[in-house]
Amino acid sequence: MVQKSIYTFFIFGVLVAACQSKKTAIVLQTDFGLKDGAVSAMKGVILNVDREIPLFDLTHEIPAYNIWEAAYRLEQTYRYWPAGTIFVSVVDPGVGTNRRSIVMKTKTGHYFVTPDNGTLTLVAESAGIERIQEIDEHLNRRPGSSDSYTFHGRDVYAYTAGRLASGVIGPEKIGPLLNNDSLVKIPYQKPFVDKDTIWGMIPILDSQYGNVWTNIPDSFLRKQSIKPGDSIRIVLYNKDSTVHSGTYLYAKTFGAVSVGKSLVYLNSLLNFSIASNERNFADSFHIKSGPDWTISIIKK
Amino acid sequence: MVQKSIYTFFIFGVLVAACQSKKTAIVLQTDFGLKDGAVSAMKGVILNVDREIPLFDLTHEIPAYNIWEAAYRLEQTYRYWPAGTIFVSVVDPGVGTNRRSIVMKTKTGHYFVTPDNGTLTLVAESAGIERIQEIDEHLNRRPGSSDSYTFHGRDVYAYTAGRLASGVIGPEKIGPLLNNDSLVKIPYQKPFVDKDTIWGMIPILDSQYGNVWTNIPDSFLRKQSIKPGDSIRIVLYNKDSTVHSGTYLYAKTFGAVSVGKSLVYLNSLLNFSIASNERNFADSFHIKSGPDWTISIIKK
Amino acid sequence: MVQKSIYTFFIFGVLVAACQSKKTAIVLQTDFGLKDGAVSAMKGVILNVDREIPLFDLTHEIPAYNIWEAAYRLEQTYRYWPAGTIFVSVVDPGVGTNRRSIVMKTKTGHYFVTPDNGTLTLVAESAGIERIQEIDEHLNRRPGSSDSYTFHGRDVYAYTAGRLASGVIGPEKIGPLLNNDSLVKIPYQKPFVDKDTIWGMIPILDSQYGNVWTNIPDSFLRKQSIKPGDSIRIVLYNKDSTVHSGTYLYAKTFGAVSVGKSLVYLNSLLNFSIASNERNFADSFHIKSGPDWTISIIKK
Repeated sequence: MVQKSIYTFFIFGVLVAACQSKKTAIVLQTDFGLKDGAVSAMKGVILNVDREIPLFDLTHEIPAYNIWEAAYRLEQTYRYWPAGTIFVSVVDPGVGTNRRSIVMKTKTGHYFVTPDNGTLTLVAESAGIERIQEIDEHLNRRPGSSDSYTFHGRDVYAYTAGRLASGVIGPEKIGPLLNNDSLVKIPYQKPFVDKDTIWGMIPILDSQYGNVWTNIPDSFLRKQSIKPGDSIRIVLYNKDSTVHSGTYLYAKTFGAVSVGKSLVYLNSLLNFSIASNERNFADSFHIKSGPDWTISIIKK
Repeated sequence: MVQKSIYTFFIFGVLVAACQSKKTAIVLQTDFGLKDGAVSAMKGVILNVDREIPLFDLTHEIPAYNIWEAAYRLEQTYRYWPAGTIFVSVVDPGVGTNRRSIVMKTKTGHYFVTPDNGTLTLVAESAGIERIQEIDEHLNRRPGSSDSYTFHGRDVYAYTAGRLASGVIGPEKIGPLLNNDSLVKIPYQKPFVDKDTIWGMIPILDSQYGNVWTNIPDSFLRKQSIKPGDSIRIVLYNKDSTVHSGTYLYAKTFGAVSVGKSLVYLNSLLNFSIASNERNFADSFHIKSGPDWTISIIKK
Repeated sequence: MVQKSIYTFFIFGVLVAACQSKKTAIVLQTDFGLKDGAVSAMKGVILNVDREIPLFDLTHEIPAYNIWEAAYRLEQTYRYWPAGTIFVSVVDPGVGTNRRSIVMKTKTGHYFVTPDNGTLTLVAESAGIERIQEIDEHLNRRPGSSDSYTFHGRDVYAYTAGRLASGVIGPEKIGPLLNNDSLVKIPYQKPFVDKDTIWGMIPILDSQYGNVWTNIPDSFLRKQSIKPGDSIRIVLYNKDSTVHSGTYLYAKTFGAVSVGKSLVYLNSLLNFSIASNERNFADSFHIKSGPDWTISIIKK
């Protein structure tokens, strides 16, 4: 009788586990836009591998060929997703050339499936690399796709991510291990302090609102004893040209200055940022972003 | 033996229920756009609470800071979703100021998680308020987010909605009950009749097609004996200025007039509306929408 | 005892099946855009039928009223989705007129729910028609929607697709069988060879990148012994006017020519296509797409 109960509970446990087991989620990012069927084709390929894989979109509005911005969007979001999540990022101007296709696992347990073209520059630094594997396209290519050279997003990356998420292949089937140092990276200005001035760069604009984000973290401000309420002088450069300078209140909220006035603040990633209250700072002062855009700030 | 069978059927029932139980869906609306990672970060936060919560998007293209339009989109769609659905709406120009964060449950059983800034003006009227609670941010804030002041959508609203949908917290843990009358509302012109003229306003444009929607319901037309086939004189005003006037056929379908001609009709919410067949009425006559735009109509 | 075990395993099997059974997916396509709540209303209607139906988007950015492009996007993507998938396509300039509403099942096992206005021109040819049924709107219309004439996407198509996906109705309840030949089709130039010249048309632009796609498949190139490395003379016509002519390298990858140079290649559907490396060919030479745009190509 006792044995019987144990047996029943075992069945019960297996079934509950089966019911609750949820396949690993895949998050897609591309520069394809959503006007055509390319993203939908990728999703169909994944669901053809396994209809139970949960699918999500990061963004498909990366500007065409803009690898830097692809790198930034991954960095901005991966940490909010559960460990195990598989990100597929396809900004791939080199599709069909001999650039490598890779799967990177980070020390945080997230996976990234992408061409090795700089897309993982920022995530590799912040999450740490656990391992990188090259995708062996002889083993990991959608059947029937070998005559297609221009859509690895569908034929290699979506297909491989789907098979990983579903468990059809284990990580050992992806392809050969690569040296972590061989990852392709985009050079950019990291933040540093020179006397009382903090230097950094503008990785991205918060483009919906026109706010300017920098890569200077709050820890640098605290080290310089910069606190909300202080006045901060900022200078923005494109390569060696000064594009804008001004002195603004360091505020906790946009409402601290009147509508149309500018301020500096910590953005949602706790990085130093610049905005105008209910106005578009970047448009007003012709500020753009990327490795060519740098900034210096100093407390007045 | 009878007892045994009952026991077996009980297990069977529990298991089927477990398999079929589907977590409460969350529907997201913001003015963030989809070009960056903000919406994706919100989704990650929810799935970090519970990977089984079904996630959907209402729209993320609300014009920046346009609370009125956020209110209208919720009103336009909530009724088509199952009772229990949790809507998270983040159009939040006052983020970081002392505006309240609330969860409203309507008499129709839908939930709305949002800043209390007028976003619920229309839903509160049409669905009826069952209760409103202020979100206690000491209890309901993403761990580790206390230094971030500008992204409550991720740190408070998505996190709270996820915990509600998953059952991690019950409604009693949201925070204190508020007086239903304390909900922040945006004033606007409700429809009324003066002699034979019906007055109302233009809550929104059907912007993909350029159709002009009003808040005059079909019941007002019926009371004035206005029927398909009648000619209707309309006047459109921006504050006190007349912007357009004309007399148009009241038709059941756009095809009732030739391409390029204008007509009036009942839109998909059964409200009086104005369009041109395969043309953009709003652009042609410089019509916009919101509380400043009113209309009068009369049968010729 | 043996009987008992069989009984237990039967229960076990039923439960595992129940846990793993995944409802048929619905993929939505419209020209509604994502700025308003129309797509969300359609999704709500489907989930009100059955909360477990997986929902996906093909695109909602079909240019307003552009039935040809709707037809192309279905053709471009349906084959990557599992058999059984239900596509709902709503580009419906004739909504409310007497155009038919139909469900087409293809020989590949995919379903298409749409107005019968040419939307299925290309899928019918490539996938083959198994059967077409008219939707009987007396049986298949959202309860309470009979006064609405302008949103069949929500009231008829989403509702019917949801009930099919869920199994609430079997296919026999859709409505009367139609003659396969009665499907409305859009005329267009099919590819053909005249002496050494291959003729075809431009069904679509790869608009994110400005690449020009044709409907000339690689099999036509092979028959004319056209191989990567050859020089190809192309002429593009709008109706009877020559819009552009040039001689370009037939390359496997964009990287085969320097940045800014043009090339011809096989696109991801293995059709002859034209591009400029990291530039927008279509914008540069004022090329558009649709049945009025044709092309001739010949090996130099």
